[in-house]
Amino acid sequence: MTTKYLLPEDQIPRHWYNILADLKTPPAPVLHPGTKKPVGPQDLAPLFPMAIIEQEMSGKREVPIPDEVRNALALWRPSPLFRATRLEQAIGTRSHIYYKYEGVSPSGSHKPNTAVAQAYYNKKEGVRRLATETGAGQWGSSLAFAGQLFGLEVTVYMVRISYEQKPYRRSMMKTWGAEVFPSPTDKTNAGRSILAKDPRSNGSLGIAISEAVEDAATHDDTKYSLGSVLNHVCMHQTVIGLEAQQQMKLAGEYPDVVIACHGGGSNFSGIALPFARDKINGKQVRLLAAEPTSCPSLTKGKYTFDYGDTVGMTPIVKMHTLGHDFMPPGIHAGGLRYHGAAPLVSKLLDEGLIEAVAYGQRGCFEAAVTFARSEGVIPAPESSHAIKAAIEEARKADAEGRTRVILFNLSGHGHFDMAAYDQYLAGKLEDFEYPSEAVEKSMKNLPQVQL
Amino acid sequence: MTTKYLLPEDQIPRHWYNILADLKTPPAPVLHPGTKKPVGPQDLAPLFPMAIIEQEMSGKREVPIPDEVRNALALWRPSPLFRATRLEQAIGTRSHIYYKYEGVSPSGSHKPNTAVAQAYYNKKEGVRRLATETGAGQWGSSLAFAGQLFGLEVTVYMVRISYEQKPYRRSMMKTWGAEVFPSPTDKTNAGRSILAKDPRSNGSLGIAISEAVEDAATHDDTKYSLGSVLNHVCMHQTVIGLEAQQQMKLAGEYPDVVIACHGGGSNFSGIALPFARDKINGKQVRLLAAEPTSCPSLTKGKYTFDYGDTVGMTPIVKMHTLGHDFMPPGIHAGGLRYHGAAPLVSKLLDEGLIEAVAYGQRGCFEAAVTFARSEGVIPAPESSHAIKAAIEEARKADAEGRTRVILFNLSGHGHFDMAAYDQYLAGKLEDFEYPSEAVEKSMKNLPQVQL
Repeated sequence: MTTKYLLPEDQIPRHWYNILADLKTPPAPVLHPGTKKPVGPQDLAPLFPMAIIEQEMSGKREVPIPDEVRNALALWRPSPLFRATRLEQAIGTRSHIYYKYEGVSPSGSHKPNTAVAQAYYNKKEGVRRLATETGAGQWGSSLAFAGQLFGLEVTVYMVRISYEQKPYRRSMMKTWGAEVFPSPTDKTNAGRSILAKDPRSNGSLGIAISEAVEDAATHDDTKYSLGSVLNHVCMHQTVIGLEAQQQMKLAGEYPDVVIACHGGGSNFSGIALPFARDKINGKQVRLLAAEPTSCPSLTKGKYTFDYGDTVGMTPIVKMHTLGHDFMPPGIHAGGLRYHGAAPLVSKLLDEGLIEAVAYGQRGCFEAAVTFARSEGVIPAPESSHAIKAAIEEARKADAEGRTRVILFNLSGHGHFDMAAYDQYLAGKLEDFEYPSEAVEKSMKNLPQVQL
Repeated sequence: MTTKYLLPEDQIPRHWYNILADLKTPPAPVLHPGTKKPVGPQDLAPLFPMAIIEQEMSGKREVPIPDEVRNALALWRPSPLFRATRLEQAIGTRSHIYYKYEGVSPSGSHKPNTAVAQAYYNKKEGVRRLATETGAGQWGSSLAFAGQLFGLEVTVYMVRISYEQKPYRRSMMKTWGAEVFPSPTDKTNAGRSILAKDPRSNGSLGIAISEAVEDAATHDDTKYSLGSVLNHVCMHQTVIGLEAQQQMKLAGEYPDVVIACHGGGSNFSGIALPFARDKINGKQVRLLAAEPTSCPSLTKGKYTFDYGDTVGMTPIVKMHTLGHDFMPPGIHAGGLRYHGAAPLVSKLLDEGLIEAVAYGQRGCFEAAVTFARSEGVIPAPESSHAIKAAIEEARKADAEGRTRVILFNLSGHGHFDMAAYDQYLAGKLEDFEYPSEAVEKSMKNLPQVQL
């Protein structure tokens, strides 16, 4: 019995899929945070290389993946696709459950898919250093690795509380040669202004973004790099779904439903967008984003214009948002604690092309442990939301007396999240459910935009 | 350019290779620790199922791998073989460096290769529970995972200092459903006797072995399981080398030298024994075991009879040993801190079929960081010894103006060893070199054996 579907290296995709080309209506404009007028390429030039800015706005359906990027991806891609037969047995379903596994990358998640592309384009345009922020460290470690491959220096502003409480992601970044500072630092105006008010500030992702953006904007040889939300990031991740389509062909099945967890949207986009293209072309397939009840941007957020960061320094985009000052509780799926959703994913939800569902973290960890005990891999807390959704889809199909083909993306392993498993196994995890009133309150501070 | 050589699932080996069949002279007998007479199958029956005891003593060249074991191995096998072209560039060598990567297993090392086989045979013979010891936790987590797959309970006696200082391997074991106790415990006579003398004992691998063995010997439904040293364990690991032989064919090359790190000997045996068979059959190939200078059993030990454990409760075997009361310093490659070497590996060294070399940990971490920054994967400290040896072989070939084909086994990733990388990067790691006199002193307490 075959459980794995592998592709040879020459089947790493040669093009990224850009769903902007297939949308029924054009995406909403991106607005300058000061003028609230649409931004042009020149507004973004201090932060990103031109190739990335072009990709961000491109209407080309297929964007070629440079050989240098494919060669870097080949260190771990194509990633394997598994039929989860032992999970199926463990939950007693008649449905067929498949998962694509992105934890085989050096940093252990899907993040390097875009990190190597971004590092490549920056290097090609003569950039010497990249600045970025990281929370728990998935993105920072991925960019550290990618920067090392292309000979770029990488500076990571890591939220101080994570820097202190989760030292091992920080160690990974340093092993890959990056410079890592606990944010807020005294190296930027943004950091100094926070420290002046609170010298012992724990930091936040919003502050760390401000520091990284300021670092890039104030150094000619330095650009900024972001790990989710933006169009080009979502597009870089489509290698996941493009490979999965080939692998499902090898398995001789086509999914009834494609599932991924959703934080900023890059992981969900990665597996779902190529299947969304099939759907646009008439194929029957459901696309399901699984998010935490503690940060329910897709299921309870409003589709409107909002800032990408907490403090209102980044461009304003139209997205499903809980309000940029929404403060999600400290759940263990740190990668899903973002107040908004990628504009692309938001638009697909608005157009009815995709669905979203929210789960509490206890149920997700229960699903993760069931998965670890049957399939072996200990999942990242983020990925556990996709597992939970896959199991629920299988159970619903069983209840309806049907057999469903389910595909989900296991975006990463949980090797750096074992403390969360300890808490779950000790019965100490809490669920957080946000009442709609609380979400409405956090949306009172949205930017005033007139188009 | 292809960097990975993958095999389809149906090429997971169907037989283990048992090198006992090809030795020029029979192996030395295994002696009872009390009577010092050769042990028979019945002496081992309280600890192991009969199928394992037969394998331990078998002279059959090829031992079939049961389908149930192959299906379990298929969760991650065949493991990939890589051409390390980026490492070659980083060190500027003309040699070709290949590595087999065992870190893709759920627990992140080669250990599950034998864990699933041992769990299967125990389950088949009606065993309900397995008891074992673990130091830093690589073996304990692998057996926890394997036990879960076959529906066996697993009890792990984990050295107390590791239990407290390295909590995440413990968390993995619990996630896979194992029961984990800090050793010494009050559950065994062995543990109680230690605690009576020192209630705050840090424990040791020797004590933990005694506890696990006593647990198995005193419970009818429980057997003992060991992760290295023994013949059957080395044989189970030969799937590594058997796959690597197929993958080197795909690469169109045959290695001049095959390298692995050496602790108890199972990892080295795994990749080297199938190539040793080629060598016995006339092929030109060097087989090189890389060990730490802090625990140099192969390079400075004596080939003689000694106990397998520290306290003298286990059978006496002929092996390269530093003396069973040799106490290696606390280097970060915890899996290489064993006073002896597998009897099989020892015999091959004695017969001149293999070579051994020792390196200090600083040079090994330097090699590991070079590897991480070129190939991506952050290696386990144990595996870094193989990387160091591979780089040295490449450099020697360059100095001689030759091109060498080098194959090494990357036995695992370092995701649970990042604190060691922190220490290395901070310049805080020490090297330990044992003067021959010190080793001679630790060998004064060898058992008196007359055959």
